[in-house]
Amino acid sequence: MSAQSGPVEMVEVVRGPLAESRHTGHAVICDASGEIVEAWGNPDQVILPRSSAKMLQALPLVASGAADAFSLTTERLALACASHQGAPLHNAAVADWLADIGRTEDDLICGAEPSRDKDLRLGMIRREEEPRRIMNNCSGKHTGFLTLTKHLGAGPDYCCPEHAVQRAIKSVFEEVTGQTSPGYGIDGCSAPNFATTMHGMARAMAFFASAETRGDVLSKSAARLASAMIAHPMHVAGEGRACTQLMQAAKEPVAIKTGAEGYFIAILPERGLGVSLKITDGATRASDCAIAAILVRLGVLDADHPDVKTFLNPPIHNFAGTATGEIRAKAGVF
Amino acid sequence: MSAQSGPVEMVEVVRGPLAESRHTGHAVICDASGEIVEAWGNPDQVILPRSSAKMLQALPLVASGAADAFSLTTERLALACASHQGAPLHNAAVADWLADIGRTEDDLICGAEPSRDKDLRLGMIRREEEPRRIMNNCSGKHTGFLTLTKHLGAGPDYCCPEHAVQRAIKSVFEEVTGQTSPGYGIDGCSAPNFATTMHGMARAMAFFASAETRGDVLSKSAARLASAMIAHPMHVAGEGRACTQLMQAAKEPVAIKTGAEGYFIAILPERGLGVSLKITDGATRASDCAIAAILVRLGVLDADHPDVKTFLNPPIHNFAGTATGEIRAKAGVF
Repeated sequence: MSAQSGPVEMVEVVRGPLAESRHTGHAVICDASGEIVEAWGNPDQVILPRSSAKMLQALPLVASGAADAFSLTTERLALACASHQGAPLHNAAVADWLADIGRTEDDLICGAEPSRDKDLRLGMIRREEEPRRIMNNCSGKHTGFLTLTKHLGAGPDYCCPEHAVQRAIKSVFEEVTGQTSPGYGIDGCSAPNFATTMHGMARAMAFFASAETRGDVLSKSAARLASAMIAHPMHVAGEGRACTQLMQAAKEPVAIKTGAEGYFIAILPERGLGVSLKITDGATRASDCAIAAILVRLGVLDADHPDVKTFLNPPIHNFAGTATGEIRAKAGVF
Repeated sequence: MSAQSGPVEMVEVVRGPLAESRHTGHAVICDASGEIVEAWGNPDQVILPRSSAKMLQALPLVASGAADAFSLTTERLALACASHQGAPLHNAAVADWLADIGRTEDDLICGAEPSRDKDLRLGMIRREEEPRRIMNNCSGKHTGFLTLTKHLGAGPDYCCPEHAVQRAIKSVFEEVTGQTSPGYGIDGCSAPNFATTMHGMARAMAFFASAETRGDVLSKSAARLASAMIAHPMHVAGEGRACTQLMQAAKEPVAIKTGAEGYFIAILPERGLGVSLKITDGATRASDCAIAAILVRLGVLDADHPDVKTFLNPPIHNFAGTATGEIRAKAGVF
């Protein structure tokens, strides 16, 4: 363990003779007992885990019995934990799920987001079509919220912090992080995003990683969600995205999930380890690189795998296609 | 002067109860003598000034006599220093300039870039038109390079570091920064971008700010370029961009110019002061905020001006249009 009080330099952006930009961050690896195995920066740093918390936000959906009551497939459980691309695969799957629970796109509280699937996005611009809620990267999570809302017979305002869905999420969030949440921010999709520490988030991920070894309802629910993510990496993000490509490239089953503002987590069921990572400045290019570097260090990823190098050590190309630099993990850190 | 060895926290990104992300940086303010008036972080930090160096890269165009030989208007001098939007205003002006020097878009070495003008960009997608070199944000700088190339009777490979244009730029760059450049990186537009220190870049900007007071060719050239930028803020960037809006909002004449990877400069002719700013992690949201904060501190900008607040303290909205947080300068820093 090499914990320090401030964030540590993790990633360099190199151009010509110098590291032009630098990214610092915090990272914690926890074991099944919730103890820190290794840490960089400050484990007590308070953070918002953003979309890296989606499997925590999906826990009540499974633990309540709602997932079974609505016969949710593992694809739908993966979508509940996803920040998807809004590609046709995702949009069709969410539409079918909404129909099966008797809800429509209009019931989704997340705002409309342009699809991140290039062909679909450009096609929609050409057809003068507006962005849609179903293409919001969180539409699977929200359909999970709607499913739980229906199961509980609760009202439609499922993103209100006092709503039964959000109260249930806060309760399990505090249970698996092992901490009282000091507050919440409103996320990009309008759901509350509960704060915790770097250590709390790593502990929660280790809870998921070790869930198969326990028989209680919450652990069994966590194991099902982690398994669903691992089984369906394309549903969790999409083509070309770090979560999907790194899960597909991994040498062992692992769930990997990004969040806005430079957050990332990993769940390693074969080792019972959970990883939390926050890039201080919120840059995705740096969190993509640093999570890959941590997983290479752990032996989960192979640094020479082309889909790993894409995130661990990507070249930077300019408008003329010339390689002008690279992003890389700072030597000696991981 | 409050110089420190490492970068200092400058900007916070707030969501709910906490500063979710933080940006550090270096900044230096120099006077006409090249001395540091005030500094944050490390004045000796080596940096690439990226597009904040465009007025330096345009100096030989004017000092050589090429600008007068081709009767360049002040609009064209401003375009030579610009990172423009590729809006119709800019594209037409560059096309006319290319025609006047007997060159075409095909002579530009900068790669093709999609227009950043929303209507034009979406229109081009709908018409299935490809991005064009003339819309590259650096096309004015490159047309300046072509103008100087023609004036010198040099070959077409004007971005080669050994080309007469780049040798002339390196020479004046080292003269006005007061330092030997330790090397260069290749920029997004394929031109060499010479390295210097934070202090060197602030000294160069103070050279521009005080150029009116001197009678030598280089100083007179610098004064013409700074005046052109101040006279034509729309040519320097475009609608909605920090450079343009902050120049237009300023209480006194000032040239303000962004660069990639979180760089920013300001030239204050009425005070003979030059400002250089680098956000460590390269984030534009932070450099926009920090340059505004520095210029508010200096009394150049009014913190309550709506076009200043847009960059100094912008709200963050989510996909549903809800305000979920804000970007702000860290209290007590500026």
